[in-house]
Amino acid sequence: MVPFGKPRPERADAARNRELLLAAAREMIAENGVENVTMDALAERAGVGKGTVFRRFGTRAGIFRALLDDSEYRFQERVLSGPPPLGPGAPPRERLIAYGRLRTGFLLEHLAVARAAVDYAQPAPGGAVSMTLPHFRMLLAALPVPPPHLDGIALQLTGALEGPLLLSLAMGEDAVPPEPGACHPLADSWQTLVERLLD
Amino acid sequence: MVPFGKPRPERADAARNRELLLAAAREMIAENGVENVTMDALAERAGVGKGTVFRRFGTRAGIFRALLDDSEYRFQERVLSGPPPLGPGAPPRERLIAYGRLRTGFLLEHLAVARAAVDYAQPAPGGAVSMTLPHFRMLLAALPVPPPHLDGIALQLTGALEGPLLLSLAMGEDAVPPEPGACHPLADSWQTLVERLLD
Repeated sequence: MVPFGKPRPERADAARNRELLLAAAREMIAENGVENVTMDALAERAGVGKGTVFRRFGTRAGIFRALLDDSEYRFQERVLSGPPPLGPGAPPRERLIAYGRLRTGFLLEHLAVARAAVDYAQPAPGGAVSMTLPHFRMLLAALPVPPPHLDGIALQLTGALEGPLLLSLAMGEDAVPPEPGACHPLADSWQTLVERLLD
Repeated sequence: MVPFGKPRPERADAARNRELLLAAAREMIAENGVENVTMDALAERAGVGKGTVFRRFGTRAGIFRALLDDSEYRFQERVLSGPPPLGPGAPPRERLIAYGRLRTGFLLEHLAVARAAVDYAQPAPGGAVSMTLPHFRMLLAALPVPPPHLDGIALQLTGALEGPLLLSLAMGEDAVPPEPGACHPLADSWQTLVERLLD
C-alpha cells in the first residue's frame, strides 16, 4: 500500500526532526489510538512549532502516510536482508508462507493507521503498491517447478494477501476480525492456500 | 465493487427515464469512450433537460456508478438464476471456476467505467462489496470436502479475484494487461489456483 523503494535522502537535521515527530506520533497512537493524533497535539508532544508539523506532513492524513511509509520501509528491509525464512536463505515455498503470515500481521497492525492515512482529497487512495507483487514473482520463478500462468498467479496471490485488508479499508469497517497478527485465521488460510498451490 | 442486492423500486416513469439515460450513456461509451460522457452531452443525447440528468445522477461520477450498479445487478442475476455452470445446477468446484473466469471478464470490461465512477469527494471509493465473498463462502461450504479455514480462504479467493483489478483502479493505470475477458491470462491463472486448491 506504500511505494516500494528507499525514501529519498534528507538533510541530517530534517531526518532527525522527522524521526522525532514519527516517534511522538507512535507514542500517541500507542497511548490513545489514532483519533487523538492531530497536527496541534503532535506539535505540542514533539515540542516543535505547528509550522514544522505542517511543512513536514501537509495534512493530518500526511502524518499517517509518513508513519506507514516508515513501517513499510522497515518491513521491506527485513524481507530483503533480514533472517530467513522471511529474508533470503530459505526455500521459496517457505519464504512465500512466511511473507504472507508476517504481512498479514503487519497489515492488521497498521489497519487503523492506514485508514487514517486515506485522504479523499487526494487522487490516489493510500499511495502506490507494496513490494508484494515483485517479491512473489521472484519467489514463484525460483521454485524447482514454477506454476503455470506465473504472472497471473503472482498477481492473484498479491490480491489474496492484501485484498482482504484493502477491502476492510474501503468499507471503512472491520471486514476482517481484529485478532492478533501472525496467529490470525487469515495467516492460517494463507498457509493452506500456498501449500495446496505448490505441493 | 457495487452493492449486493436489488435496487429499490422506482416509479414507472422514473425507471423508464433511468433506462433511457443509461442506454444513451452506454452508446456514447461504445462510440467514443468514457471521456466524452459529460452531464451536458448525456442530456443532449438522451433528449432530456440538464436538470433531469443532474437530479438523477448528482455528479458525472454518479452516471458511471449507476452504470456499474446496473451491470452488477445483471451479473448477479446470471449467478443467482442463470444457466450453469455460472448459475445453479453445476458442482461447486465448476461454479467457482466459472464465476472467476466470467467475473474477470466483467471486471476488465468495466474497468474504464469503474475508474470514472470513483469520486474522491465521497467517503468510500466506488461503493460497497460485490456478492463475490458470500457466493464463495456458500460454494466452498457446499464442496464434498470443504477446505480448512473456510472463511479465510473465501476472503482470500475474493481478494485474488477482485484484488488485481482494484489495484489497477487504485493505481489509475493498467496494472493488468487489457486482453479480452474470458480468455484473459488472469482467467487461466484463476482456474489453476482453484484446481490446485480443491483437487
